[in-house]
Amino acid sequence: MTVRRIDVGPRMSQIVIHGNTAYLAGQVGSGDGVGAQTRDILKTVDGLLAKAGTDKTKILQAIIWLSDMKGFADMNKEWEAWVPQGHTPARATGEAKLAGPEFLVEIIITAAI
Amino acid sequence: MTVRRIDVGPRMSQIVIHGNTAYLAGQVGSGDGVGAQTRDILKTVDGLLAKAGTDKTKILQAIIWLSDMKGFADMNKEWEAWVPQGHTPARATGEAKLAGPEFLVEIIITAAI
Amino acid sequence: MTVRRIDVGPRMSQIVIHGNTAYLAGQVGSGDGVGAQTRDILKTVDGLLAKAGTDKTKILQAIIWLSDMKGFADMNKEWEAWVPQGHTPARATGEAKLAGPEFLVEIIITAAI
Repeated sequence: MTVRRIDVGPRMSQIVIHGNTAYLAGQVGSGDGVGAQTRDILKTVDGLLAKAGTDKTKILQAIIWLSDMKGFADMNKEWEAWVPQGHTPARATGEAKLAGPEFLVEIIITAAI
Repeated sequence: MTVRRIDVGPRMSQIVIHGNTAYLAGQVGSGDGVGAQTRDILKTVDGLLAKAGTDKTKILQAIIWLSDMKGFADMNKEWEAWVPQGHTPARATGEAKLAGPEFLVEIIITAAI
Repeated sequence: MTVRRIDVGPRMSQIVIHGNTAYLAGQVGSGDGVGAQTRDILKTVDGLLAKAGTDKTKILQAIIWLSDMKGFADMNKEWEAWVPQGHTPARATGEAKLAGPEFLVEIIITAAI
């Protein structure tokens, strides 16, 4: 199976496609608070999935890191408004400090194409 | 390849199957202490793998989060009693606070079918 | 699809191959400081990828845990010197304490074959 990379940078690619599976780089967002950053991330994810030739009904796995688990409810509110009912992925959420203190949420997506 | 989801909730599905690969949601358990929670999680994993049409001899990857790395030995004791010798998955363990303070262990499983 | 395991231990296998995808166990390294440990890990990864019949131009996803995000720049320096330009994987980095306090970096690799 071929490997195809999209938005290739010196450190990582934003999308790596192997066969019918797309791996997205962990996405962080901007905005004031967990809710705003989650919305920003999910908008970015929509764009990356489109570039990969897929969409949010095909997500297989989501790993979510919160810099502080206090943001769990705010993240979930945005997540549940966005994730397509009947097509929810396997998901896990843990607390991890992220690349900079300004980042409150990071989401790692694997999707089918 | 088709995507099949089992135990579909509004936030996540417990099992997502893509081709011959099954992704399980991160599993937490109940019980007093890391050992008891690990046993509870592994029992749940057995049930989910059965629903997916596979079993613990087919696990590809296990990501384990402990809320405190002090529980590493207790988790490993239960893990090694459960994991089928000769069929151990790729595994990684890190410390991450989980969705609630009562949760001491979370295990994220990917398996072949 | 068959599952093939290499360097099989009682707790985990270092490599698990499913179809055209190889999952490596989370790798830690020895050495004084984040840079030295990252170099040691990446050397180990090269060896494991070779055993799996692949190489670093085929990495799909890298999940990196740092015991302290202060080591981010030192890790990135080694990473960028090692990762083949034009073939960078999807990547995510979070802070997580590791199995022992001596471990400053852990890298979890998924690769195509």
